[in-house]
Amino acid sequence: MAHEYRLTVRGYELDSFGHVNNAVYFNYCEQARWEILRTRDLFDYFLKNRLILVVAEARIRYAREAKVFDELAVHTDMAREAPYLVFDHTIKNRDTGEVVARGTIKTLLVDHDRIPHDIPDFFLG
Amino acid sequence: MAHEYRLTVRGYELDSFGHVNNAVYFNYCEQARWEILRTRDLFDYFLKNRLILVVAEARIRYAREAKVFDELAVHTDMAREAPYLVFDHTIKNRDTGEVVARGTIKTLLVDHDRIPHDIPDFFLG
Amino acid sequence: MAHEYRLTVRGYELDSFGHVNNAVYFNYCEQARWEILRTRDLFDYFLKNRLILVVAEARIRYAREAKVFDELAVHTDMAREAPYLVFDHTIKNRDTGEVVARGTIKTLLVDHDRIPHDIPDFFLG
Amino acid sequence: MAHEYRLTVRGYELDSFGHVNNAVYFNYCEQARWEILRTRDLFDYFLKNRLILVVAEARIRYAREAKVFDELAVHTDMAREAPYLVFDHTIKNRDTGEVVARGTIKTLLVDHDRIPHDIPDFFLG
Repeated sequence: MAHEYRLTVRGYELDSFGHVNNAVYFNYCEQARWEILRTRDLFDYFLKNRLILVVAEARIRYAREAKVFDELAVHTDMAREAPYLVFDHTIKNRDTGEVVARGTIKTLLVDHDRIPHDIPDFFLG
Repeated sequence: MAHEYRLTVRGYELDSFGHVNNAVYFNYCEQARWEILRTRDLFDYFLKNRLILVVAEARIRYAREAKVFDELAVHTDMAREAPYLVFDHTIKNRDTGEVVARGTIKTLLVDHDRIPHDIPDFFLG
Repeated sequence: MAHEYRLTVRGYELDSFGHVNNAVYFNYCEQARWEILRTRDLFDYFLKNRLILVVAEARIRYAREAKVFDELAVHTDMAREAPYLVFDHTIKNRDTGEVVARGTIKTLLVDHDRIPHDIPDFFLG
Repeated sequence: MAHEYRLTVRGYELDSFGHVNNAVYFNYCEQARWEILRTRDLFDYFLKNRLILVVAEARIRYAREAKVFDELAVHTDMAREAPYLVFDHTIKNRDTGEVVARGTIKTLLVDHDRIPHDIPDFFLG
């Protein structure tokens, strides 16, 4: 079941055309991943084992503009596609229900020396 | 022939793991596009016709970490794949010559009312 | 009475030392100002009269580090000190009650041609 | 004698009003400090002794707007005002010579446990 991270678009996230800059959506998706780690107590596991999720590939398809004060939700599903841990993010406008953007972020779990680490089953459970 | 935009990685662009945050590479690619518009005098054409390039899809595959003070170059090619104007970015480390990341950014040329606008031939010439 | 804007520190807002980067606090304060404009229906007034608040001086004194997932509140008071509209921001950790930072942002209300505009009484009421 | 750090304003650094966002100037000043550390070989000293410069207070007075492609220079002087190491930054437009902003950043030199560390004479020499 998808994890949901809620946010309100901030004024300084707009670019000179008055809508959210394309790179900011990657920030939103990253924060959704941080929240998942926190919610599932994976954050402590990461710190203890000195693991990090390195982004191997990041892709977002933009469907609609987002503007300041828009109430958004990032819905996230995780899947293991060895060697990747893949996050599927769908960003929706919470007022209209419309999809604003869809993101696919492929990550690798590595230790402090950048050695790949297996993705434990309990990540996805 | 590819356009080249040179930059040095800044300290505040690093994330808590000490390497350039994944979203920052999209900033680098965006600036490469701004520089192309400037170099080809397209910037004035955009302002005069109230046109903007809207990002429809953005994808980066990361090959190597970048760290503070790394000297990078963003090499960019443009291609028309109707209705898109597609930018292919290759980010290289200028000291080692190694590829740091490859990006593909699909954009749409639209006017102020978000009406799609044909991509003039002189964009690519 | 102070306006309160609540936020949770995001992971990508950390710098390479693992705490919130000094410039990000200015983002937090800016968003607190956007929220005030929205709450007081000043946002529409700004758009209609093509007014903007230009920052003339920005200062923050940092008291404590903030880390990812810290629950913060930006408490803001406004005062007119002609020709400035001054915002006093106090950023607190909502769990500990401790002050994280104090900011003073002096702004000028200007129109689209950068001509100073009087600060209406209803801004402060 | 002042250290000089040169930069060109990037398009994504603009806010929705078309000029450089107020917080971005703090980024520029931070990068000027990183460059000083590098130029004076202090960067390695910091890494070896696990020292960091923590910002205790940051202030910028804005004089003129900066826009995309503006060629700026950050001129920086350092002074020891115990317990602080103070950086005075003057940001100028390199084409017009006009001052864009002046910044004063008070920093504390601390070790990894946040214990204050004396500021060596060779920092300033």
